[in-house]
Amino acid sequence: MAQQVEVQNGGGAAEAKAVSVTAVKPQLFVEAPKASDAISFYKAAFGAEEVSRSLHPKRKADQELPLILSAQLLLAGTTILISDASDDSAPAAKTAGAGIVLCLETNDIDAAVSKAVSAGAVSEGELEETEGACCGGRVGKVKDPYGFTWHICSAAAAACQEPADVEA
Amino acid sequence: MAQQVEVQNGGGAAEAKAVSVTAVKPQLFVEAPKASDAISFYKAAFGAEEVSRSLHPKRKADQELPLILSAQLLLAGTTILISDASDDSAPAAKTAGAGIVLCLETNDIDAAVSKAVSAGAVSEGELEETEGACCGGRVGKVKDPYGFTWHICSAAAAACQEPADVEA
Repeated sequence: MAQQVEVQNGGGAAEAKAVSVTAVKPQLFVEAPKASDAISFYKAAFGAEEVSRSLHPKRKADQELPLILSAQLLLAGTTILISDASDDSAPAAKTAGAGIVLCLETNDIDAAVSKAVSAGAVSEGELEETEGACCGGRVGKVKDPYGFTWHICSAAAAACQEPADVEA
Repeated sequence: MAQQVEVQNGGGAAEAKAVSVTAVKPQLFVEAPKASDAISFYKAAFGAEEVSRSLHPKRKADQELPLILSAQLLLAGTTILISDASDDSAPAAKTAGAGIVLCLETNDIDAAVSKAVSAGAVSEGELEETEGACCGGRVGKVKDPYGFTWHICSAAAAACQEPADVEA
Protein backbone atom coordinates (compact mmCIF):
# COMPACT_ATOMS: atom_id res chain seq x y z
CA MET A 1 0.00 0.00 0.00
CA ALA A 2 3.04 2.20 0.04
CA GLN A 3 2.73 4.92 -2.50
CA GLN A 4 5.42 6.68 -4.42
CA VAL A 5 6.07 10.29 -3.64
CA GLU A 6 5.42 12.70 -6.44
CA VAL A 7 6.27 16.36 -6.25
CA GLN A 8 3.27 18.10 -7.71
CA ASN A 9 5.18 21.15 -8.78
CA GLY A 10 8.23 20.89 -11.02
CA GLY A 11 10.28 23.34 -8.98
CA GLY A 12 12.95 21.65 -6.94
CA ALA A 13 11.90 18.20 -8.03
CA ALA A 14 15.40 17.19 -9.08
CA GLU A 15 17.00 17.90 -5.74
CA ALA A 16 13.94 16.64 -3.90
CA LYS A 17 14.60 13.10 -5.08
CA ALA A 18 17.60 12.86 -2.77
CA VAL A 19 15.73 13.96 0.33
CA SER A 20 14.87 11.47 2.99
CA VAL A 21 13.01 12.05 6.20
CA THR A 22 14.69 10.08 8.95
CA ALA A 23 12.52 10.88 11.94
CA VAL A 24 9.45 12.80 12.99
CA LYS A 25 9.05 13.92 16.58
CA PRO A 26 6.17 15.82 18.13
CA GLN A 27 7.52 18.76 20.13
CA LEU A 28 5.29 20.00 22.94
CA PHE A 29 5.82 23.60 24.01
CA VAL A 30 4.89 24.11 27.63
CA GLU A 31 4.35 27.46 29.32
CA ALA A 32 7.75 28.35 30.83
CA PRO A 33 9.13 27.29 33.26
CA LYS A 34 6.80 24.29 33.56
CA ALA A 35 8.58 21.96 31.13
CA SER A 36 10.45 20.29 33.97
CA ASP A 37 7.20 19.61 35.78
CA ALA A 38 5.66 18.39 32.56
CA ILE A 39 8.48 15.89 32.08
CA SER A 40 7.90 14.52 35.57
CA PHE A 41 4.23 14.27 34.77
CA TYR A 42 4.74 12.34 31.54
CA LYS A 43 7.01 9.91 33.39
CA ALA A 44 4.43 9.36 36.12
CA ALA A 45 1.36 9.37 33.93
CA PHE A 46 2.48 7.43 30.88
CA GLY A 47 5.78 5.80 31.80
CA ALA A 48 7.89 8.03 29.57
CA GLU A 49 11.67 7.78 29.90
CA GLU A 50 13.89 10.84 29.69
CA VAL A 51 16.69 10.33 27.19
CA SER A 52 18.31 13.75 27.24
CA ARG A 53 17.73 17.34 28.28
CA SER A 54 19.33 20.50 26.93
CA LEU A 55 18.98 23.82 28.69
CA HIS A 56 18.39 27.28 27.32
CA PRO A 57 21.87 28.83 27.13
CA LYS A 58 20.70 32.44 27.43
CA ARG A 59 18.84 31.80 30.63
CA LYS A 60 21.36 29.72 32.46
CA ALA A 61 23.27 32.58 34.04
CA ASP A 62 20.45 34.77 35.23
CA GLN A 63 17.67 32.37 36.06
CA GLU A 64 17.35 30.27 39.14
CA LEU A 65 15.56 27.62 37.12
CA PRO A 66 17.11 27.30 33.65
CA LEU A 67 14.56 26.91 30.90
CA ILE A 68 14.51 23.67 28.95
CA LEU A 69 15.36 24.12 25.30
CA SER A 70 14.44 20.55 24.47
CA ALA A 71 14.12 17.34 26.43
CA GLN A 72 13.78 14.04 24.63
CA LEU A 73 11.31 11.59 26.12
CA LEU A 74 10.86 8.05 24.87
CA LEU A 75 7.28 6.89 25.04
CA ALA A 76 6.41 3.46 23.65
CA GLY A 77 9.31 3.71 21.22
CA THR A 78 8.35 7.17 19.98
CA THR A 79 10.41 10.25 20.79
CA ILE A 80 8.54 13.26 22.11
CA LEU A 81 10.27 16.58 22.70
CA ILE A 82 9.27 18.83 25.58
CA SER A 83 10.33 22.48 25.57
CA ASP A 84 9.73 25.55 27.65
CA ALA A 85 7.96 28.12 25.50
CA SER A 86 10.31 31.00 26.21
CA ASP A 87 9.92 34.51 24.82
CA ASP A 88 12.01 33.41 21.87
CA SER A 89 10.12 30.27 21.11
CA ALA A 90 6.65 31.56 21.88
CA PRO A 91 5.99 32.78 18.34
CA ALA A 92 6.79 29.32 17.03
CA ALA A 93 4.60 27.70 19.61
CA LYS A 94 1.72 30.05 18.96
CA THR A 95 1.44 29.19 15.31
CA ALA A 96 -0.89 26.40 14.34
CA GLY A 97 -0.81 23.31 16.44
CA ALA A 98 -0.85 25.71 19.38
CA GLY A 99 1.86 24.21 21.45
CA ILE A 100 2.64 21.22 19.28
CA VAL A 101 5.09 21.41 16.40
CA LEU A 102 6.19 18.44 14.31
CA CYS A 103 9.95 18.10 13.98
CA LEU A 104 11.25 16.38 10.89
CA GLU A 105 14.82 15.17 10.74
CA THR A 106 16.29 14.96 7.28
CA ASN A 107 19.56 14.47 5.47
CA ASP A 108 19.18 17.76 3.58
CA ILE A 109 17.34 20.68 5.16
CA ASP A 110 17.33 22.90 2.09
CA ALA A 111 16.07 20.18 -0.22
CA ALA A 112 13.44 19.09 2.29
CA VAL A 113 12.13 22.64 2.69
CA SER A 114 12.16 23.09 -1.09
CA LYS A 115 10.23 19.87 -1.58
CA ALA A 116 7.63 20.85 1.02
CA VAL A 117 7.23 24.27 -0.57
CA SER A 118 6.87 22.67 -4.00
CA ALA A 119 4.04 20.59 -2.56
CA GLY A 120 2.25 23.64 -1.18
CA ALA A 121 3.79 24.54 2.17
CA VAL A 122 4.96 28.04 3.02
CA SER A 123 8.51 28.55 4.22
CA GLU A 124 8.68 30.79 7.27
CA GLY A 125 12.46 31.09 7.33
CA GLU A 126 14.84 29.64 9.83
CA LEU A 127 14.75 29.42 13.58
CA GLU A 128 17.64 30.36 15.79
CA GLU A 129 18.98 27.62 18.00
CA THR A 130 17.53 29.37 21.01
CA GLU A 131 14.01 29.51 19.60
CA GLY A 132 13.14 25.99 20.59
CA ALA A 133 14.89 24.22 17.74
CA CYS A 134 14.23 20.49 17.91
CA CYS A 135 17.87 19.51 17.93
CA GLY A 136 19.78 22.75 17.84
CA GLY A 137 21.62 23.94 14.76
CA ARG A 138 19.83 25.12 11.65
CA VAL A 139 16.09 24.56 11.57
CA GLY A 140 13.85 25.37 8.64
CA LYS A 141 10.31 26.34 9.60
CA VAL A 142 7.47 25.43 7.27
CA LYS A 143 3.73 25.90 7.62
CA ASP A 144 1.64 23.40 5.72
CA PRO A 145 -1.63 24.28 3.92
CA TYR A 146 -3.65 22.80 6.80
CA GLY A 147 -2.22 25.03 9.49
CA PHE A 148 0.41 22.78 11.05
CA THR A 149 3.98 23.88 11.66
CA TRP A 150 6.92 21.62 10.81
CA HIS A 151 10.47 22.23 11.95
CA ILE A 152 12.93 20.67 9.53
CA CYS A 153 16.35 19.96 10.98
CA SER A 154 19.30 17.72 10.25
CA ALA A 155 19.42 14.24 11.69
CA ALA A 156 22.16 15.22 14.11
CA ALA A 157 20.92 13.16 16.99
CA ALA A 158 24.27 13.64 18.71
CA ALA A 159 23.59 17.35 18.98
CA CYS A 160 20.59 16.57 21.13
CA GLN A 161 22.47 14.42 23.55
CA GLU A 162 25.05 16.75 24.97
CA PRO A 163 25.30 20.32 23.70
CA ALA A 164 28.70 21.73 24.61
CA ASP A 165 27.48 24.45 26.94
CA VAL A 166 24.70 22.63 28.65
CA GLU A 167 24.71 20.78 31.90
CA ALA A 168 22.02 18.32 32.85
CA MET B 1 19.23 7.20 31.88
CA ALA B 2 15.87 5.49 31.89
CA GLN B 3 13.98 6.39 35.02
CA GLN B 4 11.43 4.38 36.88
CA VAL B 5 7.88 5.55 36.79
CA GLU B 6 6.38 6.50 40.12
CA VAL B 7 2.77 7.37 40.59
CA GLN B 8 2.80 10.48 42.75
CA ASN B 9 -0.62 9.89 44.15
CA GLY B 10 -1.50 6.68 45.93
CA GLY B 11 -4.86 6.31 44.22
CA GLY B 12 -4.86 3.67 41.54
CA ALA B 13 -1.21 2.81 42.06
CA ALA B 14 -1.87 -0.89 42.36
CA GLU B 15 -3.65 -1.24 39.05
CA ALA B 16 -1.32 1.28 37.41
CA LYS B 17 1.59 -1.12 37.72
CA ALA B 18 0.06 -3.35 35.08
CA VAL B 19 -0.45 -0.60 32.52
CA SER B 20 1.79 -0.38 29.53
CA VAL B 21 1.73 2.16 26.77
CA THR B 22 2.33 0.39 23.48
CA ALA B 23 2.23 3.27 21.01
CA VAL B 24 1.84 7.03 20.80
CA LYS B 25 0.59 8.61 17.59
CA PRO B 26 0.07 12.28 16.85
CA GLN B 27 -3.38 12.76 15.35
CA LEU B 28 -3.80 15.84 13.17
CA PHE B 29 -7.34 17.15 12.81
CA VAL B 30 -7.82 18.94 9.52
CA GLU B 31 -10.74 21.20 8.67
CA ALA B 32 -13.28 18.92 6.94
CA PRO B 33 -13.27 17.78 4.19
CA LYS B 34 -9.62 18.58 3.57
CA ALA B 35 -8.08 15.51 5.22
CA SER B 36 -7.85 13.72 1.88
CA ASP B 37 -5.97 16.67 0.38
CA ALA B 38 -3.77 16.81 3.46
CA ILE B 39 -2.83 13.16 3.05
CA SER B 40 -1.82 13.81 -0.55
CA PHE B 41 0.22 16.77 0.65
CA TYR B 42 2.08 14.79 3.32
CA LYS B 43 2.92 12.14 0.72
CA ALA B 44 4.25 14.72 -1.70
CA ALA B 45 5.94 16.98 0.81
CA PHE B 46 7.51 14.51 3.22
CA GLY B 47 7.29 11.10 1.56
CA ALA B 48 4.63 9.75 3.92
CA GLU B 49 3.08 6.40 3.08
CA GLU B 50 -0.59 5.72 3.61
CA VAL B 51 -1.13 2.54 5.59
CA SER B 52 -4.89 2.60 6.05
CA ARG B 53 -7.89 4.87 5.85
CA SER B 54 -11.23 4.56 7.61
CA LEU B 55 -14.20 6.68 6.65
CA HIS B 56 -16.79 8.38 8.77
CA PRO B 57 -19.72 5.96 8.84
CA LYS B 58 -22.37 8.59 9.46
CA ARG B 59 -21.36 10.61 6.44
CA LYS B 60 -20.98 7.85 3.94
CA ALA B 61 -24.57 7.77 2.77
CA ASP B 62 -25.30 11.45 2.43
CA GLN B 63 -22.03 13.03 1.43
CA GLU B 64 -20.43 12.99 -1.95
CA LEU B 65 -17.01 13.04 -0.31
CA PRO B 66 -17.03 10.85 2.79
CA LEU B 67 -15.16 12.35 5.71
CA ILE B 68 -12.05 10.58 6.93
CA LEU B 69 -12.37 9.27 10.45
CA SER B 70 -8.71 8.37 10.63
CA ALA B 71 -5.98 7.67 8.11
CA GLN B 72 -2.70 6.16 9.22
CA LEU B 73 0.39 7.57 7.57
CA LEU B 74 3.86 6.18 8.10
CA LEU B 75 6.52 8.87 8.15
CA ALA B 76 10.08 7.84 8.89
CA GLY B 77 8.85 4.91 10.94
CA THR B 78 6.41 6.99 12.98
CA THR B 79 2.66 6.69 12.58
CA ILE B 80 0.72 9.91 12.14
CA LEU B 81 -3.07 9.94 12.05
CA ILE B 82 -4.95 12.40 9.85
CA SER B 83 -8.64 13.03 10.49
CA ASP B 84 -11.32 15.32 9.19
CA ALA B 85 -12.49 17.53 12.02
CA SER B 86 -16.18 16.85 11.64
CA ASP B 87 -18.90 18.41 13.74
CA ASP B 88 -18.56 15.51 16.12
CA SER B 89 -14.80 15.63 16.46
CA ALA B 90 -14.46 19.40 16.47
CA PRO B 91 -14.78 19.73 20.25
CA ALA B 92 -11.93 17.29 20.69
CA ALA B 93 -9.82 19.06 18.12
CA LYS B 94 -10.50 22.47 19.59
CA THR B 95 -9.13 21.59 23.00
CA ALA B 96 -5.48 22.30 23.61
CA GLY B 97 -3.08 21.31 20.93
CA ALA B 98 -5.48 23.03 18.52
CA GLY B 99 -5.71 20.37 15.91
CA ILE B 100 -3.18 17.93 17.30
CA VAL B 101 -4.11 15.28 19.82
CA LEU B 102 -1.75 12.59 21.09
CA CYS B 103 -3.15 9.08 20.88
CA LEU B 104 -1.85 6.54 23.34
CA GLU B 105 -2.42 2.86 22.78
CA THR B 106 -2.46 0.77 25.90
CA ASN B 107 -3.32 -2.70 27.13
CA ASP B 108 -5.79 -1.33 29.71
CA ILE B 109 -7.69 1.87 29.01
CA ASP B 110 -9.25 2.21 32.45
CA ALA B 111 -5.97 1.65 34.28
CA ALA B 112 -4.13 4.03 31.97
CA VAL B 113 -6.70 6.77 32.47
CA SER B 114 -6.62 6.16 36.21
CA LYS B 115 -2.83 6.37 36.29
CA ALA B 116 -2.84 9.62 34.31
CA VAL B 117 -5.45 11.11 36.61
CA SER B 118 -3.45 10.02 39.64
CA ALA B 119 -0.49 11.91 38.20
CA GLY B 120 -2.52 15.08 37.71
CA ALA B 121 -4.45 14.82 34.46
CA VAL B 122 -8.17 15.46 34.21
CA SER B 123 -10.40 12.83 32.69
CA GLU B 124 -12.83 14.27 30.20
CA GLY B 125 -14.85 11.12 29.73
CA GLU B 126 -15.01 8.90 26.70
CA LEU B 127 -15.24 9.65 23.04
CA GLU B 128 -17.68 7.97 20.72
CA GLU B 129 -16.20 6.07 17.84
CA THR B 130 -17.45 8.73 15.46
CA GLU B 131 -15.77 11.60 17.28
CA GLY B 132 -12.39 11.07 15.75
CA ALA B 133 -11.30 8.18 17.89
CA CYS B 134 -7.74 7.17 17.00
CA CYS B 135 -8.59 3.56 16.33
CA GLY B 136 -12.30 3.30 16.88
CA GLY B 137 -13.77 1.52 19.85
CA ARG B 138 -13.58 2.95 23.36
CA VAL B 139 -11.35 5.97 23.79
CA GLY B 140 -10.65 7.69 27.09
CA LYS B 141 -9.99 11.41 26.80
CA VAL B 142 -7.58 13.03 29.22
CA LYS B 143 -6.30 16.59 29.46
CA ASP B 144 -2.89 16.94 31.05
CA PRO B 145 -1.93 19.82 33.40
CA TYR B 146 -0.07 21.52 30.54
CA GLY B 147 -3.02 21.81 28.22
CA PHE B 148 -2.47 18.86 25.90
CA THR B 149 -5.16 16.33 25.08
CA TRP B 150 -4.42 12.60 25.05
CA HIS B 151 -6.76 9.99 23.65
CA ILE B 152 -6.21 6.65 25.34
CA CYS B 153 -7.34 3.64 23.35
CA SER B 154 -6.66 -0.05 23.24
CA ALA B 155 -3.86 -1.38 21.08
CA ALA B 156 -6.31 -2.87 18.64
CA ALA B 157 -4.34 -2.08 15.53
CA ALA B 158 -6.52 -4.46 13.56
CA ALA B 159 -9.50 -2.20 14.19
CA CYS B 160 -7.72 0.57 12.30
CA GLN B 161 -7.04 -1.51 9.26
CA GLU B 162 -10.47 -2.51 8.13
CA PRO B 163 -13.48 -1.38 10.11
CA ALA B 164 -16.42 -3.56 9.20
CA ASP B 165 -18.55 -0.82 7.64
CA VAL B 166 -15.87 1.14 5.91
CA GLU B 167 -14.63 0.90 2.38
CA ALA B 168 -11.33 2.34 1.25
